[in-house]
Amino acid sequence: MNRSAILDMLRSRTGQFVSGEELGRQLNISRTAVSKQIQKLRQSGYDIESTVSQGHRLRRLPDLLRPEEVCPRLTTRILGGELHYFTEIGSTNDEAKKCAVAGCPEGTLIITEAQQGGRGRLSRGWFSPMGKGIWMSAVLRPPFPPQEAPKCTLLAAVALNRAIREVTGIPCGIKWPNDILCNGRKLVGILTEMSAEMDAINHIVIGMGINVNIAAEEIPPELREIATSIQIEKGAPVSRLDLLVRILECLEELYLAVRTGGFDAVLSAWRQESITLGRLVNVIAPDKSYQGTALDIDGDGALLVETAQGLERVLAGDVSIRPA
Amino acid sequence: MNRSAILDMLRSRTGQFVSGEELGRQLNISRTAVSKQIQKLRQSGYDIESTVSQGHRLRRLPDLLRPEEVCPRLTTRILGGELHYFTEIGSTNDEAKKCAVAGCPEGTLIITEAQQGGRGRLSRGWFSPMGKGIWMSAVLRPPFPPQEAPKCTLLAAVALNRAIREVTGIPCGIKWPNDILCNGRKLVGILTEMSAEMDAINHIVIGMGINVNIAAEEIPPELREIATSIQIEKGAPVSRLDLLVRILECLEELYLAVRTGGFDAVLSAWRQESITLGRLVNVIAPDKSYQGTALDIDGDGALLVETAQGLERVLAGDVSIRPA
Repeated sequence: MNRSAILDMLRSRTGQFVSGEELGRQLNISRTAVSKQIQKLRQSGYDIESTVSQGHRLRRLPDLLRPEEVCPRLTTRILGGELHYFTEIGSTNDEAKKCAVAGCPEGTLIITEAQQGGRGRLSRGWFSPMGKGIWMSAVLRPPFPPQEAPKCTLLAAVALNRAIREVTGIPCGIKWPNDILCNGRKLVGILTEMSAEMDAINHIVIGMGINVNIAAEEIPPELREIATSIQIEKGAPVSRLDLLVRILECLEELYLAVRTGGFDAVLSAWRQESITLGRLVNVIAPDKSYQGTALDIDGDGALLVETAQGLERVLAGDVSIRPA
Repeated sequence: MNRSAILDMLRSRTGQFVSGEELGRQLNISRTAVSKQIQKLRQSGYDIESTVSQGHRLRRLPDLLRPEEVCPRLTTRILGGELHYFTEIGSTNDEAKKCAVAGCPEGTLIITEAQQGGRGRLSRGWFSPMGKGIWMSAVLRPPFPPQEAPKCTLLAAVALNRAIREVTGIPCGIKWPNDILCNGRKLVGILTEMSAEMDAINHIVIGMGINVNIAAEEIPPELREIATSIQIEKGAPVSRLDLLVRILECLEELYLAVRTGGFDAVLSAWRQESITLGRLVNVIAPDKSYQGTALDIDGDGALLVETAQGLERVLAGDVSIRPA
């Protein structure tokens, strides 16, 4: 396609001008046609400067999550085999569920620059501003029964935490069951949803919301006490693209391991990277509330909490860590 | 509506002629309008005889599962609060899932006279001929986590087995996990599907296929060894309507009990009505096949099988009972 060919040429000489005449000659199209494609690239978020005398130049490599940027860098075999990209969408999980029902292949990704109706657990909202985070869902079709679905949530938490630490160096950790926190504030939310028969999973959708380059003042006031971003914690923005690529690599590595029986390694990584274990926690379960010490998680992903009345096994509910 | 008013008048004098003139006068419509509605009723499956001299008569009370027949007889509070009736449909489970995603109330029923694409477990087909069975799905929104979803399958099996025994007197029993058999052949299949987050069920669809008035020669040759019907086992047809009403009563009673914590009663009823427990079984699990003795089910709905190598816990797979 002309547009991606133009982009490739500009990218290969990032920062330098390329004349419209040269671009047109290479592609065998008119200068007017070149200008039209440049205009479309600019609308897609590419920072391209155009002058009558010198032509066009890509000022800097863009930090967009477009397939043209993402796919050439992927080394994964399953994840991203199909990638649906949106500038804006309601919820990537809802879109992924639609794709899954329609029969999309395992590993299909839904990536968007912004969500209008981003969702967290239990229909809570998820702030997803344009171009500032990684708002993404992955469709998996694991061969295990629905009782083992929590494995996918735990492995996603381990993969995301590992990738973020490697790429950014910030001291993040996993809060049971599926949040990643940094300095006590939420950096990442994971929403896993499944469609299943009683003994077979039809599909699992793992939704990931990662606050990347959100400045402190961009976080809505009501979320400032509980939410943070990589940019805030690191003190500088990071490449969303670098982070996305590493996340997908970690996610696929762990998923392939779990599919072939290697869940113990994920479980022990989860324990090491957990910030919940060993802490005093408040538990709000569907039927009661209590306090205790988080001791461990079991193979089903349940949190084991020691209370004055005995050991509680938490599968559902909200667990908050009490300040030390 | 004129049509149901006409039906009510004919039904109140089943077997007797009512003149078109009288019907028209009562409803203040023309005899031609009456004839049109009679024609539509006949197309819906009502057995109405019409003569020029005597008028119209309902030959016999119909055994249709239309809302006009079902709803007046329901005593349930949740099940059937909303009822979608189809003469023919692809799959009641697929329709129920669509309704559930669109937000239908708990207890919504999908009932059809025939399915073109009836489904059993693991995408296997389900023979669902016109007017010969109960092909139905119910939408539930239980307040427990997805790990406890198998409760719904077990309670449905108990409810159906109980209702069929009460209404028909035939000696049926439950085969793990979700079939009802009579004399070694399948009478009922149950397909439970769910949509869930990791710690909360969005909805559960219980699909039920009950072979009621299918004659032996109507069963496709390839199914004759494994399938049967109530009519075959009892030696006479039964009222689908009577059976449906009793099924819904049993289902709701057990569901309300389970919702408020009374699962032990369902479990012990399941054990009593099981034809699997105590028998030698062949197990084809996703990862291996083996033989053993079915000892019990546990609270998660798993079948416990004693093998030469030790105790196996079967959550997924096919279990066949070996002839005694």
